[in-house]
Amino acid sequence: VENEDQLIQSAEIVKKAGVKILRGGAYKPRTSPYTFQGMGEEGLKILAKAKQQTGLRIVTEVMDAAEADLVAEYSDLLQVGARNMQNTKLLRALSKIKKPILLKRGFAATLSEFLMSAEYLLSGGNDQVILCERGIRTFVEYTRNTLDLNIVPAIKQLSHLPIIVDPSHGTGRYDFIIPMSRAAIAAGADGLIVEMHPKPEEAISDGEQSLKPDKLKQLMSEIDLIAKAVNRTIL
Amino acid sequence: VENEDQLIQSAEIVKKAGVKILRGGAYKPRTSPYTFQGMGEEGLKILAKAKQQTGLRIVTEVMDAAEADLVAEYSDLLQVGARNMQNTKLLRALSKIKKPILLKRGFAATLSEFLMSAEYLLSGGNDQVILCERGIRTFVEYTRNTLDLNIVPAIKQLSHLPIIVDPSHGTGRYDFIIPMSRAAIAAGADGLIVEMHPKPEEAISDGEQSLKPDKLKQLMSEIDLIAKAVNRTIL
Amino acid sequence: VENEDQLIQSAEIVKKAGVKILRGGAYKPRTSPYTFQGMGEEGLKILAKAKQQTGLRIVTEVMDAAEADLVAEYSDLLQVGARNMQNTKLLRALSKIKKPILLKRGFAATLSEFLMSAEYLLSGGNDQVILCERGIRTFVEYTRNTLDLNIVPAIKQLSHLPIIVDPSHGTGRYDFIIPMSRAAIAAGADGLIVEMHPKPEEAISDGEQSLKPDKLKQLMSEIDLIAKAVNRTIL
Amino acid sequence: VENEDQLIQSAEIVKKAGVKILRGGAYKPRTSPYTFQGMGEEGLKILAKAKQQTGLRIVTEVMDAAEADLVAEYSDLLQVGARNMQNTKLLRALSKIKKPILLKRGFAATLSEFLMSAEYLLSGGNDQVILCERGIRTFVEYTRNTLDLNIVPAIKQLSHLPIIVDPSHGTGRYDFIIPMSRAAIAAGADGLIVEMHPKPEEAISDGEQSLKPDKLKQLMSEIDLIAKAVNRTIL
Repeated sequence: VENEDQLIQSAEIVKKAGVKILRGGAYKPRTSPYTFQGMGEEGLKILAKAKQQTGLRIVTEVMDAAEADLVAEYSDLLQVGARNMQNTKLLRALSKIKKPILLKRGFAATLSEFLMSAEYLLSGGNDQVILCERGIRTFVEYTRNTLDLNIVPAIKQLSHLPIIVDPSHGTGRYDFIIPMSRAAIAAGADGLIVEMHPKPEEAISDGEQSLKPDKLKQLMSEIDLIAKAVNRTIL
Repeated sequence: VENEDQLIQSAEIVKKAGVKILRGGAYKPRTSPYTFQGMGEEGLKILAKAKQQTGLRIVTEVMDAAEADLVAEYSDLLQVGARNMQNTKLLRALSKIKKPILLKRGFAATLSEFLMSAEYLLSGGNDQVILCERGIRTFVEYTRNTLDLNIVPAIKQLSHLPIIVDPSHGTGRYDFIIPMSRAAIAAGADGLIVEMHPKPEEAISDGEQSLKPDKLKQLMSEIDLIAKAVNRTIL
Repeated sequence: VENEDQLIQSAEIVKKAGVKILRGGAYKPRTSPYTFQGMGEEGLKILAKAKQQTGLRIVTEVMDAAEADLVAEYSDLLQVGARNMQNTKLLRALSKIKKPILLKRGFAATLSEFLMSAEYLLSGGNDQVILCERGIRTFVEYTRNTLDLNIVPAIKQLSHLPIIVDPSHGTGRYDFIIPMSRAAIAAGADGLIVEMHPKPEEAISDGEQSLKPDKLKQLMSEIDLIAKAVNRTIL
Repeated sequence: VENEDQLIQSAEIVKKAGVKILRGGAYKPRTSPYTFQGMGEEGLKILAKAKQQTGLRIVTEVMDAAEADLVAEYSDLLQVGARNMQNTKLLRALSKIKKPILLKRGFAATLSEFLMSAEYLLSGGNDQVILCERGIRTFVEYTRNTLDLNIVPAIKQLSHLPIIVDPSHGTGRYDFIIPMSRAAIAAGADGLIVEMHPKPEEAISDGEQSLKPDKLKQLMSEIDLIAKAVNRTIL
């Protein structure tokens, strides 16, 4: 969320492309204290307006235990970012919220650490947990992170929880989003979360890993074919 | 190649499953000097017999510059293993051979190192080079290596060389081979190389990453569906 | 901190060994929700008692922005754990505290991410920041993490902040603590933080990476020799 | 080895600094086929001349089984490079040579793989094996490789073989050589191998990781102090 017009416009685009859920960042976890930190509660209100106009469900990130209730009020689904995967205070607070939680894998999380973080949510009473692979740190230089699709069958063997894939953060490259989205669905992933920006070249952050609107349509039609090939339906 | 009967039996199975090329290891690169090192030239002769009986083309590994001509005599395609990806003497010797080379990515090879090893082959005059992703070393504990499918679109952008994927070595787990094979084809890979053993539980090596014959048939039919979804044909 | 007797006993041991600061965990960041989570405020009170009896200064971990003031009341130095290195809410809260902060490197933090997390503290007004290397995630199997001493000269070139080393968490092996402590001081580190337990084999957590009391004395005398060799003094 | 004058000059410098062994590369393993590949046998002859003039012992790399005897004729110690650590044909050939072998750790070698490669030499009858840590591949960006000193105590526990450290290749940074050399000796390493170039800024390769002559003297006096602190003597 960078401003109201941009968000409403994006919401209309993704709705037309057949997407059902909109992610918008009101609180953004940033490496540097000097870069754009998100619009905060004002951002949440803009997201609520987008929801009202389009009927899309809203996902947004929550970064602190003290903000859990506020963010839950405005969102249909709350995201725990990779940097907070082991923020146990936050996980405990969210285990009491009656909304689904999207739990992103930490940059260096093992499978058992990932599932144990989910367990903080489950053991506190929130059983609506969705796991999300978003890339790990390796020596590899051609992607910002190494999207590790091997975790999809690994989770399918050990857990009943759904696992989705974020190829935007997972690779850091807009031109890898479509092939790696196809691969994720083919590996058995239950969904995708993809960055889209009406004008990536003007984005304040993450432009290099955002699809343009026409590429989003292409993505939707390509993964629809893959989903059919693995007996799945895109909802 | 562990003995003649086992190989001929395997060759018949893979042929029936619709596979066109048979890989058999006559010289095996082993971590320990005390484990089975392959049957050597005798293994090559068994492979030749399997070729004659089934019409399958033969791939086998070459580990030393001095053996390049001998292995080339018996094989349709020569494999350079991950441990030898930067064995420049071997690469130079193979650049003079008139047979296609399957070049496996090293455990810790960057993209430019991988392409530079291919360049040793190309610059010496052998332009029939097939690249193969087979997993990299990371902190991840649920796979023996981390199969890095991101390299598929990375290579498609920089090189005209075909890239295939080895999910057996890439994950080290037989139960991940089918989903990761589907994912590889969906990502744009040009082929697969998969371990099969008539009785994996009796294999001298690599049993835990080998498919059983019936699973090979299932693999072939599943990737056929994915290939169609990405407008490719399985040859 | 597992109980009062054990802590007071430990405090006396470390004081005799010439140590000046005692770290005790009242709030413990645990991977699993089902393992010992620390004693909380009761643990803080035990730490305060140990301080009163021994004159040692106290370090303890703070895990949530909302607890920053409480923990600061009982501690001379507040630790931000590896899992919270990018918990920006916590960092902002601590930037307003008038106590030194021990900032541990995340499992997969790059140098710039580490320094940017320090910048959250500095930019908010807290300039008493101590950096701490505690191991990174790699493929290596003989240590729980890979203690990366290369970051010591790297930080010395870019920052005026002190950098200390934690070989207990950094290697996960009690038998590597002494050689890697010597190496850390020789590389230019400004200090060490080491786990000690009167009876490691009875520890509720981290026993395998804790020194016994007599080994702590040996450590102190060995690093004293190294410190002299690099013109430093152990305070 | 880039030419005779440069090598003889270097040999005189290192001898004056108190160094006992000179490493010169006659055959160089290069990532690209288009960069300087070493002078080959002519380089070996220049090394022999340097040995005659200075009395220094000579180390040089051998890259192919077929060249083992030739290189052994000119060298006192033969190096197996990181890229060839699992070139089993080369290891078997060297196991028959009556000269000490310097075995460098592969970029992604585990401890057991490293020791198993040494076992190829030992099991063939060559028991003069010296192990060498030279950095591993990780996500870290401030060093070209991550010099992993933790392997020093790891090897000391499992093997009687000496282990030395190469901070030039291990970090890729000339300004890290001195602190990481001190750290290596403090960790218990049995020796160091360091790149020196009379004029690093004019080097054909590896200039950025080479010490200048006056820094080599400083290194020798600093590690002498550390060696005394850990009860060792620099030979």
